[in-house]
Amino acid sequence: MPRLDDVLARLEADEKAGLDRLMDWLRIPSVATDPAHAEDTRRAARWCADRLREAGIDATVEETGTPDKPGAPVVWAQHAGAPGYAGPHVLFYGHYDVQPPDPLDLWESPPFEPVVKPAEPGGPGERVVARGAVDDKGQVSTFLDAVRAWKEAAGGVPVRFTVLIEGEEESGSVNLERFIESRASDLKQCDVALISDTGMPSPTQPGITYGMRGLVYTEIFLHGADQDLHSGLWGGRAPNPNSELVKVLAQLWDDDYRVTIPGFYDDVLPLADEEREEWRRLGFDQVEALRKIGLGPEADVGEAGYSAIEREWARPTAEINGISGGYTGPGAKTVIPAVAGAKVSFRLVADQRPERIRDAFFAWLTECTPKGCRWEFVDHGGGPPGNVARDSAHLQAARRALAGAAGGTEPVLIKSGGSIPVVGMLKEKLGLDTILMGFGLDDDRVHSPNEKFELDCWRLGRRAHTRLIGEFAGAD
Amino acid sequence: MPRLDDVLARLEADEKAGLDRLMDWLRIPSVATDPAHAEDTRRAARWCADRLREAGIDATVEETGTPDKPGAPVVWAQHAGAPGYAGPHVLFYGHYDVQPPDPLDLWESPPFEPVVKPAEPGGPGERVVARGAVDDKGQVSTFLDAVRAWKEAAGGVPVRFTVLIEGEEESGSVNLERFIESRASDLKQCDVALISDTGMPSPTQPGITYGMRGLVYTEIFLHGADQDLHSGLWGGRAPNPNSELVKVLAQLWDDDYRVTIPGFYDDVLPLADEEREEWRRLGFDQVEALRKIGLGPEADVGEAGYSAIEREWARPTAEINGISGGYTGPGAKTVIPAVAGAKVSFRLVADQRPERIRDAFFAWLTECTPKGCRWEFVDHGGGPPGNVARDSAHLQAARRALAGAAGGTEPVLIKSGGSIPVVGMLKEKLGLDTILMGFGLDDDRVHSPNEKFELDCWRLGRRAHTRLIGEFAGAD
Repeated sequence: MPRLDDVLARLEADEKAGLDRLMDWLRIPSVATDPAHAEDTRRAARWCADRLREAGIDATVEETGTPDKPGAPVVWAQHAGAPGYAGPHVLFYGHYDVQPPDPLDLWESPPFEPVVKPAEPGGPGERVVARGAVDDKGQVSTFLDAVRAWKEAAGGVPVRFTVLIEGEEESGSVNLERFIESRASDLKQCDVALISDTGMPSPTQPGITYGMRGLVYTEIFLHGADQDLHSGLWGGRAPNPNSELVKVLAQLWDDDYRVTIPGFYDDVLPLADEEREEWRRLGFDQVEALRKIGLGPEADVGEAGYSAIEREWARPTAEINGISGGYTGPGAKTVIPAVAGAKVSFRLVADQRPERIRDAFFAWLTECTPKGCRWEFVDHGGGPPGNVARDSAHLQAARRALAGAAGGTEPVLIKSGGSIPVVGMLKEKLGLDTILMGFGLDDDRVHSPNEKFELDCWRLGRRAHTRLIGEFAGAD
Repeated sequence: MPRLDDVLARLEADEKAGLDRLMDWLRIPSVATDPAHAEDTRRAARWCADRLREAGIDATVEETGTPDKPGAPVVWAQHAGAPGYAGPHVLFYGHYDVQPPDPLDLWESPPFEPVVKPAEPGGPGERVVARGAVDDKGQVSTFLDAVRAWKEAAGGVPVRFTVLIEGEEESGSVNLERFIESRASDLKQCDVALISDTGMPSPTQPGITYGMRGLVYTEIFLHGADQDLHSGLWGGRAPNPNSELVKVLAQLWDDDYRVTIPGFYDDVLPLADEEREEWRRLGFDQVEALRKIGLGPEADVGEAGYSAIEREWARPTAEINGISGGYTGPGAKTVIPAVAGAKVSFRLVADQRPERIRDAFFAWLTECTPKGCRWEFVDHGGGPPGNVARDSAHLQAARRALAGAAGGTEPVLIKSGGSIPVVGMLKEKLGLDTILMGFGLDDDRVHSPNEKFELDCWRLGRRAHTRLIGEFAGAD
């Protein structure tokens, strides 16, 4: 058995090359949700498989979807580990697709031309800025680099593992369930999943995430006349889909920011006093978090009766992610549009099911159909909430690896309001618990212009993955 | 004095050439509201001045706006008429700018490549289809052709008139008031204004419009954080401008479709029973009008207590003409946007003032500011309602000209829900009444894809303008 220190030394020596590799990957605009980037998306998958093969892992790029409607491919690999390996069979999951980069004019440097920016006094540390820097290429790269360091320093990765890196996480993982079912016999050999797509409290305070919210993402269109109308000739005597859509959607919340869809909270569990107290002790500073995004304390709005962190981690929400109707160009156009649309998503917690919430939302809209209008509904997918056991042996191994990587600082147990649909899916389909060991920060501008990944966090991730491989393999 | 019949014969002989000229004009995309079409807009103005000069009218293209912010130019001409002319000095107003053509994909032929389509059994008659076909290039062309026929058949136009054809009618006529003030001494010589930018009940039933609604057009933006946010990490703990904008705008109407802004109805006059009865006798068929735009009778929505025609002609409204915020591309993006915006306009009646309504709207919004958000307001201009005397001698002349052009069918007196800001402006600034002699039809798709002008209506307009010139000049 090789010494862990040798692998860590190799990892450190490879740091500059590792950063160059990440920058290469970030240059590929793998916006899988946009058909114009279909070839870029495949290219990003091949790039990832190539890096795994360089580390001695026999990775392949696997098609998803149907011949009629192909999905983004999955990067797939199975690795036996060292002879006599007695630790858990680990499923490493990540995603190589990225969010659309718009609004483009708010980027200080082009989203797919990554740059390393120096630390700013009182501001962010040294960081790489690009779409996908932290979500999720940068985080996946910390695992790829750890695997490479083991290969180079020890001749191979001692742990038995399976790799599943998908390309549709940012668009609802619509083909993932079918893919997992098609590989169920292989995947059922796994003992635990490992995902690096979450955050930690600060660059010096590592964390492990034990719960994510679920997601269901819909798009709705309200149709009126079969043509755009002149608002002078028709204003006051025909329905205006813009105005009617607004009237319906405004009723989605009550004055306490609670969602009004009947049955919406049926499968939400009450928060335990113990958990609330534990979260309170984490000292999360909502006022400071709001300040960083240009808002004052009065912007701390959300469901009545819960603190900000409770609302993010343990309460469901409804959000209008996009809305569009009528004339939106420069100047004035006096039009009543034929159709208005909105993208509406829900974050789910506890036992809420995406299909049930979607159906309840569409039923509620149908109930509220404005006179003279009709609805058109689209389901963009999602996934159930992901809730992870807090006390498994695998989680203990991750805690030790993280503490070692952070110079002895014990990680805290946190949750996230974001969604990784696969967490719930792996639990349901394969009975797998997931270790969410992530390295992002709250102000990383995930999904926004100028997304960043701080290099101290990236380095911590590389060391943590290298050490976790050692933990599972019993290296010293 | 030449005989009217000679001029009408010349007009008819010129018909094909006149249609070709109109098609040329329609090919110039004079979308003045869009800075990308600034040069096209000027080109359309020059085209119009050139046609007037061909008819012996000394027309010029006059700049508007300020050096910092130039407006679209005005086509301007003053013509003395025949020696000894004793009729009214007529101000002819029209506009050569057109509405933006989007949504482009709904056009059956490109908006700026005019085509003549044959009559369809049970459908529209022979017609020219293009952006601006009827609003307002086609209607202005009926006046230009009448002037040309008088020049060619009689050596000149006997009537004293001034021409003011502007290029910003579709974007709130923002520079017109200043232009009118700069020419006030000339314009005060006029006795009556003549505008052809309205409609009539059917191709065989001419009409004169004696009232238009006013307009005020605003754009509002609701700002939240200084960056787009991840809806997982921030959903439930920061304001979402999309959702908050929707909640505020939904309160703009009560359940009876009445506008809720305090004081909004203060300057609205009650409808006289006599006028309601007169309108009822016009036999306007709202169910049939809705059917033509793909809607059933249940789509007859609007302010409670008024018929459709009363709502269009005599009641004010608020409309969301455009709304936009967050991700509106294909697929899913889980974003909370930094800003959401809407274009909101109001149609005004009776004594309502655009400035007062705009101020009241902005004050109401400010009162409703969502927690943690701030507003940004833009005024895109507008104009007061236009109310015209029903019994003037000039109107009687127009009735005779129209009846003659329509083979003896007496025109009816109607109103319009649309707005021609200049009507109110001419009354206020110069004390001028306006004759609104228009030739559009309800289903002309004004401001919509596939805008049309039926050739029977165009021909009626050419004859009516030719005859009206004769009426004023005392020709027989």
